[in-house]
Amino acid sequence: MTPSTAISKHVVTEHIARLSEELSQADADGYFVFQCCNLLGFLGLPIGPTDRLVCGLVNVQGASALVLPAFEASAANEAPDGCQIFTWEEHEDQYAALAAAASSLGLNSGRLLVDHRTWIEVRERLQDYLPGATLETDPGHLDRIRMVKSPEEIEAIRQACAHCSIVFDYVSGELRVGSTEDRLHRGIADRLIEIGASAEIVLVQSGPNGAIPHLPTGTRRFENGDAVIVDCVCRRQGYCGDMTRTYQIGETTNLLQRAYSTVRTAHDAAIDMIRPGVTASQVDATARAVIDRAGFGRAFLHRLGHGIGLEGHEAPYIVQGSDVVLQAGMCFTVEPGIYLDQSFGIRLESVVAVTPGGCELLSDMTPLDVSCEPINVVI
Amino acid sequence: MTPSTAISKHVVTEHIARLSEELSQADADGYFVFQCCNLLGFLGLPIGPTDRLVCGLVNVQGASALVLPAFEASAANEAPDGCQIFTWEEHEDQYAALAAAASSLGLNSGRLLVDHRTWIEVRERLQDYLPGATLETDPGHLDRIRMVKSPEEIEAIRQACAHCSIVFDYVSGELRVGSTEDRLHRGIADRLIEIGASAEIVLVQSGPNGAIPHLPTGTRRFENGDAVIVDCVCRRQGYCGDMTRTYQIGETTNLLQRAYSTVRTAHDAAIDMIRPGVTASQVDATARAVIDRAGFGRAFLHRLGHGIGLEGHEAPYIVQGSDVVLQAGMCFTVEPGIYLDQSFGIRLESVVAVTPGGCELLSDMTPLDVSCEPINVVI
Repeated sequence: MTPSTAISKHVVTEHIARLSEELSQADADGYFVFQCCNLLGFLGLPIGPTDRLVCGLVNVQGASALVLPAFEASAANEAPDGCQIFTWEEHEDQYAALAAAASSLGLNSGRLLVDHRTWIEVRERLQDYLPGATLETDPGHLDRIRMVKSPEEIEAIRQACAHCSIVFDYVSGELRVGSTEDRLHRGIADRLIEIGASAEIVLVQSGPNGAIPHLPTGTRRFENGDAVIVDCVCRRQGYCGDMTRTYQIGETTNLLQRAYSTVRTAHDAAIDMIRPGVTASQVDATARAVIDRAGFGRAFLHRLGHGIGLEGHEAPYIVQGSDVVLQAGMCFTVEPGIYLDQSFGIRLESVVAVTPGGCELLSDMTPLDVSCEPINVVI
Repeated sequence: MTPSTAISKHVVTEHIARLSEELSQADADGYFVFQCCNLLGFLGLPIGPTDRLVCGLVNVQGASALVLPAFEASAANEAPDGCQIFTWEEHEDQYAALAAAASSLGLNSGRLLVDHRTWIEVRERLQDYLPGATLETDPGHLDRIRMVKSPEEIEAIRQACAHCSIVFDYVSGELRVGSTEDRLHRGIADRLIEIGASAEIVLVQSGPNGAIPHLPTGTRRFENGDAVIVDCVCRRQGYCGDMTRTYQIGETTNLLQRAYSTVRTAHDAAIDMIRPGVTASQVDATARAVIDRAGFGRAFLHRLGHGIGLEGHEAPYIVQGSDVVLQAGMCFTVEPGIYLDQSFGIRLESVVAVTPGGCELLSDMTPLDVSCEPINVVI
């Protein structure tokens, strides 16, 4: 495993215990694990399905099995204790290996919950090979387990944020008029490799490019007066961190300053109201009200945030209309933004963990307002 | 779009025309497009589904529609002429947008073929929102269209291989005792960024690490006598190239030389027999027989190759037991390998396009035997 996927065996063991409990409560006999993130989080496997079948099974007693290509068998070295490994050779029937795995766990009959992002062709083959099993799409058990994190998982997210933070330390020293989005992007990649890390996603968006959320890093040259959004997702020990800062190069305008301070105020107001018992939509509404009142309501183009953990985006989603009630251990981003078409974008993104009394910032290694200082003007 | 996803509009138009024809022959009314590669290849869309719904529809008349988040609407700028764009805001019902799209194409009833890697939860929602439609998993229409490439698609694959080739030019000058896998990996990434490219996958595996196919690049220091596998996948204009070379640093051994020349002979023998009418398994068997005869049969751990195009791995698979009959326009890799546990791995990988009279090498910018020269020994 690489440092990014070296998930703690203890976390995996806890996940299996919780899954076994959920299965028991749901009166189900087993679970078919398919998504990469779930194979890692529930079976310690750092690879996932491609054109080659890779999947896992867990039964209600907590016994597990993995199915993977024979030549990749070493990927299962960190599987849970007692996990049975079923490999298939290239010319063999992959699904026969899966059927053997199911049989070994007593899952060729009974109720089997199926990972909700399983491909439809895989589900059909699964049913063909397990004609006695009743397959049901997971109505949300795995998501529910993943949504509330243990202290160990929260620490992994904090470590991932610390890697994002290294990116921002680098950016602060390198942003200047005349450089370009892709040059900065390359420097970030180099800096991460130097410390033995890598980022899953880095976005550098300057000036008008910042006005389109998710636009990939381009080749635009930084200009005096630019707002520059840097968004970074890193993974450590299987868990993601996700942070965004917005820098300003050189001269500012009243509009830009007003937008920045509105985003900052919205961010802080949302953080202030996060605690157990509050709903996700209330948190979103708090930030949105600040931005609305400042007259930028139509420029806040997306939800306030998303859960984070084994995936960069997962439940709970902090969005209008969500009645998810916050609980201690939930981790998510708070990322208000203002996007003015053809002009600029501003976004600040933190990661929080809900605590019994409120929330804790997991991404506080880089100050939010590294951002608003006019820096490195070289003309 | 970035250069890697800037697919030709003409290719997309041709794909839609072929899909419309397939639908007509299959007596189906429409197609639900879900996978990233199919959204790019059939609808020109460079983004795909995440926790946010992104998908497309094509009807039997060849009319199309895209569904995507409002704030990412600009990603649909390269959609086919006449394609209708349905966007949804963060707080809106994503599937209502999909239902509207289906309705606009007359697809809320009738037979709708569904992309075979659609997630089961998405298929269920699709059925909920289109209760009058009969959903059927695509039995292989899209794969069949993608499997036979046009001259324009083949040229894109050749261009992608040319980018891989730049990697090998760089590696030849940089491989030396005392450097490490990750340092070389970083240099490759830098070199690609310098020329405005990027690789989807780069694997650097030295000495015993090479004996496990797909093992990620590690931190191992190159030693005198190492075989070093460098495998690279680049994308240009939406299409993938995929090449592998095996280098040797310093002193060699008889065993290593014998394994190398066996892989080379197997590679050439397979290429020699590729032509329309031959089956995929015959091509695999030809290479396998060479390796078997040399006594390395059990060390050739994987199939001979895989189709390549919008995905790095796609049909046709060149594997034992496949009765797929080769046709002109099919593109795939030929990549025999020998893997000796704890010792070394050797793999050579080319990309070919089947022609009416045989096949054409699309990856011949880098000689295969750049590899077997003892190079850059600095002790």
